[in-house]
Amino acid sequence: MSEEGVTPRSEDYSRWYLDVIREAELADYGPVRGTMIIRPYGYAIWENIQKGLDRRFKETGHQNAYFPLFIPYSFIQKEKQHVEGFSPELALVTIGGGKELEEPLIVRPTSETVVNHMFTQWIKSYRDLPMLLNQWANVVRWEMRTRPFLRTLEFLWQEGHTAHASAEEAEAEAMRMIEVYRDFSENDGAVPVVVGRKSRLERFAGAVHSYSMEAMMGDKRALQAGTSHNLGQNFARAFGTQFLDRDNQLQYICQTSWGLSTRFEGAVIMVHGDDKGLILPPRLAPIQAVVVPIWRKDEEKAPVMAGAEEIRRVLADAGIRTNLDLDDQRTPGWKFNFWEMKGVPIRIEVGPRDLQNRSCVLARRDVPGKEGKLVGVPIDLLPDRVNSLLEEIQSGMLTKARAFLESNIFDCKSYGELTEIVSGGAWARGWWAGSDGDELRIKEETGATVRCIPFEQPSGPGSCFLTGQPAAEVAIFAKAY
Amino acid sequence: MSEEGVTPRSEDYSRWYLDVIREAELADYGPVRGTMIIRPYGYAIWENIQKGLDRRFKETGHQNAYFPLFIPYSFIQKEKQHVEGFSPELALVTIGGGKELEEPLIVRPTSETVVNHMFTQWIKSYRDLPMLLNQWANVVRWEMRTRPFLRTLEFLWQEGHTAHASAEEAEAEAMRMIEVYRDFSENDGAVPVVVGRKSRLERFAGAVHSYSMEAMMGDKRALQAGTSHNLGQNFARAFGTQFLDRDNQLQYICQTSWGLSTRFEGAVIMVHGDDKGLILPPRLAPIQAVVVPIWRKDEEKAPVMAGAEEIRRVLADAGIRTNLDLDDQRTPGWKFNFWEMKGVPIRIEVGPRDLQNRSCVLARRDVPGKEGKLVGVPIDLLPDRVNSLLEEIQSGMLTKARAFLESNIFDCKSYGELTEIVSGGAWARGWWAGSDGDELRIKEETGATVRCIPFEQPSGPGSCFLTGQPAAEVAIFAKAY
Repeated sequence: MSEEGVTPRSEDYSRWYLDVIREAELADYGPVRGTMIIRPYGYAIWENIQKGLDRRFKETGHQNAYFPLFIPYSFIQKEKQHVEGFSPELALVTIGGGKELEEPLIVRPTSETVVNHMFTQWIKSYRDLPMLLNQWANVVRWEMRTRPFLRTLEFLWQEGHTAHASAEEAEAEAMRMIEVYRDFSENDGAVPVVVGRKSRLERFAGAVHSYSMEAMMGDKRALQAGTSHNLGQNFARAFGTQFLDRDNQLQYICQTSWGLSTRFEGAVIMVHGDDKGLILPPRLAPIQAVVVPIWRKDEEKAPVMAGAEEIRRVLADAGIRTNLDLDDQRTPGWKFNFWEMKGVPIRIEVGPRDLQNRSCVLARRDVPGKEGKLVGVPIDLLPDRVNSLLEEIQSGMLTKARAFLESNIFDCKSYGELTEIVSGGAWARGWWAGSDGDELRIKEETGATVRCIPFEQPSGPGSCFLTGQPAAEVAIFAKAY
Repeated sequence: MSEEGVTPRSEDYSRWYLDVIREAELADYGPVRGTMIIRPYGYAIWENIQKGLDRRFKETGHQNAYFPLFIPYSFIQKEKQHVEGFSPELALVTIGGGKELEEPLIVRPTSETVVNHMFTQWIKSYRDLPMLLNQWANVVRWEMRTRPFLRTLEFLWQEGHTAHASAEEAEAEAMRMIEVYRDFSENDGAVPVVVGRKSRLERFAGAVHSYSMEAMMGDKRALQAGTSHNLGQNFARAFGTQFLDRDNQLQYICQTSWGLSTRFEGAVIMVHGDDKGLILPPRLAPIQAVVVPIWRKDEEKAPVMAGAEEIRRVLADAGIRTNLDLDDQRTPGWKFNFWEMKGVPIRIEVGPRDLQNRSCVLARRDVPGKEGKLVGVPIDLLPDRVNSLLEEIQSGMLTKARAFLESNIFDCKSYGELTEIVSGGAWARGWWAGSDGDELRIKEETGATVRCIPFEQPSGPGSCFLTGQPAAEVAIFAKAY
């Protein structure tokens, strides 16, 4: 950790974000422009994200598989919207084993095409449906403006791909999975989201409906944190993916796809962090509690270290991810700053006097100063106390972030109001019946896009804030990462 | 599952292997030549391989990270042996975002170069050492002759990369990790191995010493199932990776790398499988026990299904990966064949008469016929009985495979003997002091290569079976996949 710490958020939010990533050793820049190395501490957070999602996917009947990185160039051209959406972002392999290839290979930007190629071979009859797959993989999109975790040339994600016998089943699956994401985001990440439908312009290239969850970062900008798409029969028709139904008739399958990426880690950093660094929700924190032994005189060291090690062991045995800071070069103050930068939810301080009473001090990362300190906590009660404090921190972080989100969404009744809200950095919610052209104009003039048409709607109808036309739904407009 | 089943191993071992992969739905061919889709059942085995290894890596102090897929072309040219070894196998990205790139990008065949680029930035002093990293990733090698799992254009693996302050530490790490692989292979995979040093010719491109574990497939051919390399300072010198030692002197770091891939799944298939299909070791089996309900009359169905479901639940609650075959179209005989093809270690049969006695029948996959059947097993004792039977199967499979391995390694005292042993398909072990040229000649004339110079050596010295020169070590020669 450097001496300076991080740029204050209020001074320069973008610099604060990059400083935290560097100082907490989450990630580093790769030698190829736009690529990133995920360092061990950043990867351990990703592993916890993976565990939280993978468990939910399996509980909802999905199985993992692995599809190839390389896709024949011709595949991407089969679905019209898909090729338009992805062509500008492709990386192409043109030389293999020293020879020019007859057909270039795409390094997958997403796998719908190769998945459909296989679905066409695997799915013969209604008995093969539904087919509920997921893969954990890397994908490549040739982005020009990159930022660690938020937008990188290569990123890690999971992509779900499912095939169904009916449009209703596919729609239900797309909705089920956006709900799985919401549950994960709010309960594991403590990241509250607004869930809804994407506008036609913001839809995934090749989808019938796209659903997303939108999170509000600390600077109030929106981040699309996970998406779920009802693909209808678009890819099935492009790839001839058909099955024999119960009446022995050939039908096209209906499909979904859904993805969440390392971008979510960017959301966790930006939703919770402060000027001292990361604040990690306990369920995603690689280290949930760190024990910092404190002594002054040499003869105090041995008993304090023994007590600290006992605490570490007791907590680890209770399944709490616990670290003991063994360093004997740094001061306690330096260590406090260091572990605060790393966002560890609970710091446990133990010194000679604490040990005389078989007690210790707990300090919450999410509540600064004395208010977040619990003194005289009996060591013998530690696992229970730490577990319940972790739960309290987890739910407290969600509550705090939700209050921030809700207090920064404002209703707008005119284009003027929208402009004002959005230029102040907040989110605008208004009745909306505009055209694609209207939406584009708003984007060009204000920088704000339709983040989603939320599932949760006020009782209506109303009139469109822009056109005055009758509107059945409200939409949320915001500037986004 | 098709009606024909699989080609008998004795008739055509290669076809048997491919048939098992198809019929057990482990993998399928990708649209790009040499690529593979890992299907859910095959991927679930890989997930268990990952868990077994990842736990061991973390227990030995390693942390996961993630390095980029794309490596600048210039990087591969920095280490002389490395570029010679990998140049013929590279896939190159030459177009990104619609534009020709100034410098082509390599799709990583392995990550030593990019890891060293980062080590050079991260490692400043002896306090930063050792640095013990691992990554789970896909890699690409432009192979011309591919075979599912064994050799594919893209494959999944883990690659460990470590940096140390001294040559001794790096050597100890390389040895520790080949031992971790051996422990995993034998105890989780039930795949016995011969562990040893690679000959100079068979060494990893850029290594000082390479260690490997060699397994014997069902056709007696050798398979290199995992490797660990002491890289010395070769990459450190090429990339200028230096640190300040305790005396404030700049030193090059010493490194290791080690990898195990989806190839290991090929070993599991070939070491254990028989003419009925897969036989999976319980620790890697996605399904450890399958419950097959058996009824004839309609009125028997409901109580039998209820009993079968109770068995499933009791076993699942005890942490045993259990499946209940709910299909009511297929005969019990068809189901037996199906689950045998899938290699499920224990089949549990339950019918009306069994239920009257609250008992069931256990059938071992690894012991065919009546000998592998336990009848009248009380349902109330099931979790314990199934757990202990799984342990028995796990160790029994290792014992059987080890007996096969050991009975097919023969000592050779002359080149004639070696030729005879090797042409009979077995492994030859002999005192060896030949040159690189001698080794190449043997490879050309017999098709056998030095698999390794085993750590376990007979008391010597002896005389080289080829040259008659004094030899300090025996080497193992065999044809390999």
